[in-house]
This record gives sequence, C-alpha cells and structure tokens, in this order.
Amino acid sequence: MPKNTFVNKRLLEKAKKENVELIFDRFEKQQPQCPWGLDGGCCKNCFQGPCRIISNKGVVKGICGATSDVIVARNLLRMCAAGASSHVDHAREVVLTLDAIVHGKAPGYRIKDKAKLRAIAKALGKPYKGPIKKVAEFVVKEALEDFRRQHGVFHIKGEGEYLNWLKINATKERQETWKKLRILPINADLEISRAQHVTTIGNDADPVSLLLQTLKIGLVDGYAGLHLATNLQDVLFGVPTLVKSEVNLGVMKEDYVNIAVHGHVPLLSEKIVEWAKKLEKEAKKVGAKGINVIGVCCTGHEVLMRHGIPHATHIIESELPIVTGALEAMVVDTQCIYPSLQDVASCYHTKIITTMIAKIPGAVHIPFKVENADKAARQIVLEAVNNFKNRGKNILIPKEKTELIAGFSVETILSVLSKLNKKDPLKPLIDNIINGNILGIVAVVGCRNVKLRGEKFAEKMIKILLKNNVLVVATGCIAHAAAQEGLMRPEATERFAGKTLKAVLTAIGKANGLPCIPPVLHMGSCVDNSRIEVLINTIANKLKVPIPKLPIAASAPEWMTEKALSIGIWALALGIATHFNPIPPITTSSAEVVRKILTQDLESITGGKLLLGTTPEDAAKVILEHIKKRRKELGLKQ
Amino acid sequence: MPKNTFVNKRLLEKAKKENVELIFDRFEKQQPQCPWGLDGGCCKNCFQGPCRIISNKGVVKGICGATSDVIVARNLLRMCAAGASSHVDHAREVVLTLDAIVHGKAPGYRIKDKAKLRAIAKALGKPYKGPIKKVAEFVVKEALEDFRRQHGVFHIKGEGEYLNWLKINATKERQETWKKLRILPINADLEISRAQHVTTIGNDADPVSLLLQTLKIGLVDGYAGLHLATNLQDVLFGVPTLVKSEVNLGVMKEDYVNIAVHGHVPLLSEKIVEWAKKLEKEAKKVGAKGINVIGVCCTGHEVLMRHGIPHATHIIESELPIVTGALEAMVVDTQCIYPSLQDVASCYHTKIITTMIAKIPGAVHIPFKVENADKAARQIVLEAVNNFKNRGKNILIPKEKTELIAGFSVETILSVLSKLNKKDPLKPLIDNIINGNILGIVAVVGCRNVKLRGEKFAEKMIKILLKNNVLVVATGCIAHAAAQEGLMRPEATERFAGKTLKAVLTAIGKANGLPCIPPVLHMGSCVDNSRIEVLINTIANKLKVPIPKLPIAASAPEWMTEKALSIGIWALALGIATHFNPIPPITTSSAEVVRKILTQDLESITGGKLLLGTTPEDAAKVILEHIKKRRKELGLKQ
Repeated sequence: MPKNTFVNKRLLEKAKKENVELIFDRFEKQQPQCPWGLDGGCCKNCFQGPCRIISNKGVVKGICGATSDVIVARNLLRMCAAGASSHVDHAREVVLTLDAIVHGKAPGYRIKDKAKLRAIAKALGKPYKGPIKKVAEFVVKEALEDFRRQHGVFHIKGEGEYLNWLKINATKERQETWKKLRILPINADLEISRAQHVTTIGNDADPVSLLLQTLKIGLVDGYAGLHLATNLQDVLFGVPTLVKSEVNLGVMKEDYVNIAVHGHVPLLSEKIVEWAKKLEKEAKKVGAKGINVIGVCCTGHEVLMRHGIPHATHIIESELPIVTGALEAMVVDTQCIYPSLQDVASCYHTKIITTMIAKIPGAVHIPFKVENADKAARQIVLEAVNNFKNRGKNILIPKEKTELIAGFSVETILSVLSKLNKKDPLKPLIDNIINGNILGIVAVVGCRNVKLRGEKFAEKMIKILLKNNVLVVATGCIAHAAAQEGLMRPEATERFAGKTLKAVLTAIGKANGLPCIPPVLHMGSCVDNSRIEVLINTIANKLKVPIPKLPIAASAPEWMTEKALSIGIWALALGIATHFNPIPPITTSSAEVVRKILTQDLESITGGKLLLGTTPEDAAKVILEHIKKRRKELGLKQ
Repeated sequence: MPKNTFVNKRLLEKAKKENVELIFDRFEKQQPQCPWGLDGGCCKNCFQGPCRIISNKGVVKGICGATSDVIVARNLLRMCAAGASSHVDHAREVVLTLDAIVHGKAPGYRIKDKAKLRAIAKALGKPYKGPIKKVAEFVVKEALEDFRRQHGVFHIKGEGEYLNWLKINATKERQETWKKLRILPINADLEISRAQHVTTIGNDADPVSLLLQTLKIGLVDGYAGLHLATNLQDVLFGVPTLVKSEVNLGVMKEDYVNIAVHGHVPLLSEKIVEWAKKLEKEAKKVGAKGINVIGVCCTGHEVLMRHGIPHATHIIESELPIVTGALEAMVVDTQCIYPSLQDVASCYHTKIITTMIAKIPGAVHIPFKVENADKAARQIVLEAVNNFKNRGKNILIPKEKTELIAGFSVETILSVLSKLNKKDPLKPLIDNIINGNILGIVAVVGCRNVKLRGEKFAEKMIKILLKNNVLVVATGCIAHAAAQEGLMRPEATERFAGKTLKAVLTAIGKANGLPCIPPVLHMGSCVDNSRIEVLINTIANKLKVPIPKLPIAASAPEWMTEKALSIGIWALALGIATHFNPIPPITTSSAEVVRKILTQDLESITGGKLLLGTTPEDAAKVILEHIKKRRKELGLKQ
C-alpha cells in the first residue's frame, strides 16, 4: 500500500502480521477500477445490455438508443433514489417509534422534548395545548402522510399536495421555486419507486427531465429523510447541547468491556448507552473496570452529540477497533456496515452483533425492535460483557486521541450567540458576515472514501477555508476526520483560523466561558445535515436574501455512498454551490448535457451548481471564489 | 449482421439503403458485451467502487467485503424492484382513473364491467348492492391502501397486514407459505423503496435474506402490479372475449392514415382507437381512405384483446413500422419505448408522440391525463391525420401478415369450455390433464431479446412443447412472436399439436363453431400474466393440489426487461418452475449460494425453481422433464 497514508499504522501492521485482510487490501485488489463504472457510461437497466459508452470510438448510444446523457442521468437518478431510500427508511423507523409510544407499545422510550414536539405540531398547523400524546398522534399522522400521499386522489387530498416536512422546513422562496419546476415530491416511497420506473428500459429518455426528477429525489431525502429523522430524534432523545468528548481509537480502554455502536439509528445506540451504565456491575463481575461504549460512524455521532460518548472512528477505519483485540462487541444497525467486519472479527474474539436490516452471515443476530428495546439492549450488552473473558493476548490500543467540543445543534448555536446579544442572538453572526470578519459559511460533510488513500483531503481543504476566515460546519464521517485532526478544539481557532474569524470566535467563546469556539462546528450525524439547512434558513430569513445568493457553499470532499450523493443533490436544489470529490459518475465525455446542466445551467434553475476540484487546494479555491462572488453580488465587504 | 435472422429483411435493407441505424446495428456495436454486466459480478452501489468479481484470480469480494453472492443477490433485488415499480406505477394510473371517474373528473371514461367491479368489492369483503360509484369508491380506497399501508402502525392497521390484492387473488396455501417465509409485502412503494435501502453499501449482506426480499418484490409485482392493473382495466374497458385479427407488419395499409399505439397503458390506446373512428372523415379530407390503428408491444395487445385491433410488431421490430415510410404517428405512453424511435422517425415523416413518462427529445409531447383524455386523444389523432400529406415516396409495406384468434381471458376460456360442460366447465380441461391428453400447461411469456438474434428461440421451443401435447398460454411480445409464426391460428393445432392435444382442442373448437382451438392461447399483455395465475388457481383449487405440485411450468425464453425478471420471480414465489433465457446475471462463478438456491433449494422453500436451457431444445427438455416429474408425483398417466 505505497500510497496509503491512513493513520494507525501500528494497527495496520498488526493486521498484516495476523493475516487479516482489511479494506485497504481489497481496494488494491480492485485496481484498476472499471472505467465505465467510474465515468457513468455503463447501463445495466435491461438484459439486452449491458451497454457501454465508448465516446472516442463513436459508441455514444446504448442498444435501445439511449444516449450517453440519458444513461448517465438515469444512473444518477437511481443512485440518488437508493440514497434517499436509506434516510427515508431511517426516518420511518423513528416515526413508527413515536407511534408506538403513543400506543403504549414502546415502554423503553419516552417523549423527552415535549416543547419541540409541540413546536412541530404548531408548524404543521395545530398548536395543540392538550395532552402530549394527542400532539404526538397528530404529528405521527402527518409524518406518515409523507409516505402515504397519492396524487390526483380526489377523496383524500387535492392535487398539488406535497411533503409536509418540506412545507414546514423549507423557505417559502424555495417552495415557490420547486413548484415552478414541478419537483415537489408527492410521497417519499412513491417518488423513489417511480424513479425506478422512469429509468427502466424505454421510459424517460430526456436528460433534462431525468435531472429534474433527480432534484426531486434530493428533496425527498432532505425532508422525508433528514429533517424528519432529526426532528423526531430530538423529540425522543433531546436536542444536543454543548458537550466535550474525545475522538480516535485511543478512546478504547484496555481494562474495560469495550462496546462499539456502529450504524445510524439512535433508537439502538441510545439503549446500548443506557444499558451499559445499568450493567456496570456485571462487567466488574467478569474482571473489567466497567463498560466503555464508543461510537463509530453516524450512530456514534448521535450519542456523542447527546451524551458525549467518545467517538472511535469513521467508516474507513471501522475494521480497526476489532484489530486492537480489545473490542468485545460491535453492535450494528443499518447502513455503512462493511460485511468484512465479520471476516475481521472471526480472527479475533469480537462479536459482531447485527440487529436490524444489516445482516451478515456468521454474526450474532439479536433482532432489535422498539417494542422489545430494553430486553434486546440488555441481551446485547451482556453478550459483550460475557465476551470479555475471551480476549486474546495480543492487544494494541493506539494512544492517539483528541479532545473536541460537539453538540452544535442550531438551538445550541443560537444559545451560544445569545450570550453576546440576548435579544437578537443572530445579530453577532450576521454582522460579522456582513462586515467580512466571517467570509462565509461552508458545510463540509459526508463520507471518507478509501479512494482518497488517507491523504486527508478534507482536513487540508478545511484548513485553507479556515485561514480565509470561512466558518466551517461539519457532520458525519468528515466531522470525525476533522475532530481527529484537532479542528474541533478551541485551540484550532488559534492555530488555523484567519485573523478576523479568530477574533469573532474568541469573542463568542469568551462570552460562554471558553477560550474560544472551535472553527469547525460539529453539527451531528449525516441526517443532521438537516440542521445545516435550519441554520442557513435562519440566516436567509434574517438577511431577507434567498439561499442561492448567500455567501455559503457545501462540500462532500470524500463522498462514496449513494446517500451522500442524494444529500448533495438536495443541496443543489436548495441553491447551494456544492463541491463533490471524487467527481460523480458523469464524466463520460459524450454526456455533455448532464455535465453542463449540473456545473453551469443549474445556477439559473435552482441557483445551485456542482463545483469540481480534485485537490484540496483546487476545491478550496473554487469554493472561495464562489463565496467571494456572492459577497460581491450582495455588495458585502470583500 | 451475419447471425441476424430477423424477419422483414426487405425493410432492413431499406433502412440500410437510407442510412438509418436500427437496434441490430447498435447491438453489433456493443459486442463484446461487458462480462461483469453479463454475469452479475459488478457492483456500483457505492463510489469506493465500482468493484468487479474476478473469481479465477481470487477477487471474490468487493472493497467493502461484500461477497460475490451478496453482489449478485443485491443486483438481482434491484433489477426486480425496478421491474416491479413499472407495473405498480401502471396499476396506480388505473386506480387513479377509477378514482377520477368516481369524482366526476374523468368524463372520457366509464365503468364498463360493473359486475366485475362488484365481484372485486365482494372479494374485498363488501358485497355492496348500492350505487356503482359507492362500490368504486370502496375498491379505490382498498387499492390505494396497497400503496399506503405502513407496518407497525397501531392506529391505522395492526402489524401483519399485507397487500389487499394479494389477499383476494392468491390461494390460501400460497398465503400461508409466504407468511411463514415473512415475505408478505406491506405496501408496494414501501417495499420497492426498502429494496433500494437494503442494497446500499453496508446493509443486508446475507444472500439468503436478499433473495427472500427479491421474492417479496415478486409478490409486489404480481399483486400490486399485474393483478391490480388487469382487474381494473377489465372494469374500465371490459373483459376480453374471443376475437379474430391479424399480426405482422402487413397489417399496415398504404391508403390509410396509419397510427401505431405503442407502450403499455390502455388508458391511452383505448382513447386513440375511439378517436380514430370518430375522425375518419378528417382522414378522408386529406385523401386517405380512413384511419388504421395498429398495435405495438403491450398496449397493442390490450386493444387487440378487447377490440381486435391488428398487432404490427413486438418490441425488437418496433422501429420497422417507421421504416415503411407509411406510418403517420407512433403514439407512445410508458415502458419499452426505445429512445431510438425518434432517431429513426427523423429520417422519415413519422411523428413520435410522447404522452406520459416516456419522453424523448425531439418528439412531439402531448401530455395525456385522464382528465383531458378526449381532448388529448383527438389532438393526437389529428396530428397523425395532418401528417399524411408529408409521406415520402419510398414506401414499403411488407405483405406478410397472419391471422390469429385472441381474447383468451380466463372468463373466455371457461366460456369456451362450458360449451362442452355447462355445469362444470373446468371438467373437460381437468379430465384431459388427468388422463394425459394434455400433458401439462406452460406459460411462455415476456420479451423478445435482440441477443437471440432473431433465431426464433420461443417459436422453436413452443413447437416442441406442442408436439408433446403441452397446452401453451402466452402473453406480451412472445405472444406476438407466436402469432406471427402462425401458432395462434386453428390450423396450428392440426400442424403442430401432438395427437391427444389435437383431439382435445378439436373437440373444444367444434363445440364452439370453430375447426379447433389454437394450441397457443393469447392471454394478453404482460400485466395480463395475472390471468395466467387465475387460470392456475382455478385448476389448483379444482384439483385440490397446491400450485407447486401441478404439471405446469413457465418460460421467459427471450427476456430482457427488469420487469420480466420480477414477473419471473413472482412465478418462482408461486411455486412454478420457471425457465429463463438468457441466463439471468447470476453466473459469476463464485456466486454459488445464489445459484444453488434459485435452481435447487427453492423447490423446498416455495416449490418453484429456476430452469435453465440455452437452446430451444434444451429448454423444452427441462420443461417437459419437470412436467413429467410432477405428473408422476401426482400419480397421473405418463
């Protein structure tokens, strides 16, 4: 692995010595990767195919006559639909949990933030003052409608109805824009299902139409996925507040029963955290000092944000906690769970415990449902505790770990700002954007991608942005990477922020009893990208400037999942210039229409556009240029 | 095209002379096709990939650790989900039309078969005797529930609820089997959406679980797609009855305005047929003798079955009516519409008129909605009429055409049989199956695939089956191919049927005033595969033998669409041995689990199994062996 500069080299060496195959090895085996898979010019949507576009040999159509643009656009739509389905299914689980609570079927859960639930009901048009269960029942009904609504159904709702969660979360201006484009989604599952239909052989062959439908799927993801999940998770588990914790594999503890929670749905990880505390005594009985829950991937961020649970690793390194030899159990739910985890675990004592849809042959499967949450969580934690005795002798827990401050929900951000201006908390932020102390805000989000070979693309890009006085907000695996790099500590402001940004963050920090606020704000898991829109909407409404005109941008500098793509498309629909690296599979040379629309024309359609930059420097450059352009257009100080 | 033996060579030559690229040319350009696309060992479900399985080099996992079996099973599930979505969306359009009728919003449509609608309501549990609109309202509500039902929703319906259309159409025995397998679908869109979710990176990595979900998607297709569409199309347009007509390109008429209806949804084609009659005078004004509507693909079968509209061609030859130079318009709706139609049309005067989701740049788009059906249909027909004057000089309408008898709905089959036994119409059929005069029944269905290079795989296989006294029922493009070969004429019985089959069909024919019944029964479009299940269920119930034990089989001898695959998976769930050619993309050598399950183990799970046979002779052989085995097990005469 000559190019691989991933951290924790000692663990990599340990794995090698112990003949354990890791993702880096499998990645090398796949080189060179299929050029058609990479450039999007491959179609498998019927079995007259597969077809491949070979532009330089004049093969620019599939057997059915689908053009390069059609093939690329169809692939993009299908990828995004699959991505959106992940968040939609996640959100559905949370809605159904609230439903189960209402009906007394989920004894392990409760409505923690009643005020937030009432606020949602109010936004939905019913400012209930009655019992909270009634409020919940109403909210559940309206939420489920976002999976149930049919169009043209005269006896249910009129035509033109669309996602409730879009209505209550997107700005009026955006809703008008999407209405004109006819991309307001009817219901989440219907749109995802229809995206399959339109992309089957002999259906929609208009790349413009396909791209519009891709934008629609982005809206499905954003509202029936992200916002819905975050909203109701906050209702069930509370809105995150400022919290200090640590990241990196050094958070594992040799004397403790180590349990990793990995996946996305806090319904499970919340319960594991709870039962790990309750079963401390059991751990002591088997000779451990206690139970140490650590986070991996997004569900790790959920319990970091709400409970300060230390976060061990992002997705690419998710096999490594097992290689330490000190992980008793890795409890997984859904999404981003490498099947290889069980292969690696079979070389050590670690138990991989699957619970929901991510099933792996050989793993222990303990079905987790909200109805039996406590029983299942107890069983899972005991499984880990009882596994402590099976540890081998070769244990290597890296020392590296870094402090961070997390918990930056929008509520927290406003609360922190209110220490400067109680009456108008947003004013200090807005004033500093206007006067140029803060050049702009960039959301750096998404996955870590093994293709980037651990070259720290995200970290390098973020540092350039910070130096240019850009405030960065982050979620998901990139948030972990930034934290691991130390960018979520107050000290990072001193070290990396430009002069004026540093001054602002120091002033805010001091008002809050901190040396300063970190320059990269941890806003949560990938579904919490919803929080970023709330922040942007708040600023847009305050400034009375539509989103596309704001000095902001987004970046998924190391994306790799289909859902990262659909979130990015949502950002494009929101009118946000969005950087993607690697370049999405739209590079087939003859697919010029799709590329032109995404990178140019879209600016006059939704206001967003796809930014490309395949080095950290280039990426930062295009982002900064965009922000400066927007500042100029708004007449703000350069 | 050395291997290409497609018919209408003169038209192929004409196209060549006129520099028109056809599907056969594009097919040659794609040779050799990608081996990973063909064998299923390619994964594009995340952008760490694409990954490829190279079994002989030991590359048997993707970067994430997904095994060959997982990759193949995930691809299969996604293909089937896309396939099912097509039929589900089709069915939804029909449901919404009935809904629009109820609410007075679809003046162009009416409830034609009130008895069938009442029968459906009765099956759904409400034997209404009131006004038909009330009945329709109830049926619409129950149908829409199949797109709306959520699981675990305590205040809507209890857990364990599943598709209404499955409940009222599948046998009790099948429902019990599927319940045990936990594959009863909740709602169609939800299952299609979830199929995307479980196949994203890091989700379900258990090939058995993935295959079970694929079977579930088969049930979605069968019931929320096929049955629902057929049921309500019969309600709107009537149950097909015996009808004589003609097939092949010779049905085009030089002196007439020729309009082809191509696609799947009879909501449109019914209206075109109606308006073509109403606007005859307009055609005469422009110098034509009248208007000649011809069918292409499934919507052609719909109007053939109900109105005897001649059927011009199956999908592979769908470009050829344009090449004749005598086609004024090809009106398309959804599915199987090659984008190349517009490329070909641009070389002639033909107007491609798109109306629904199948959009093609350059084509005339006239949006068709049930609310404005008459207006749109009139406009479309006039567009064709006005185009008559633009015909070029080089016109070549092939002479070839063949008579056929169509219209074999189950109601028609029973009516025909009742002429032999009025009290117990099924008895003559059952008796002749028991005594071996009819060895078995085989459904030969699905697409024509350009890969088969016009070698008449289906026709050859069917002839072998007939000779062995197997009664064949057919739908879709294969039905057209069989008809074109003359297999749907009474004469075919004389020429191709085995001795005992001939005797039975002659007896039935004579009782109906025909020389005999054709040996291949045209049961309709692809969604009408539902009719085949009704027939099988009728026989199973009468014999008191579950479907998997019957001497029957199915074959998709030239499949190519994703929906053909999902229909085939439904057949496997039904317990029917089902032959597929080409072999579906499960041939990656290291994907042994998936192959073994589909070709062997499934027999002890659902009773179905995947039959393979890549020549007409081999295919017929495995099918006949299967039928003989089942006869033996039932103790029937060999």
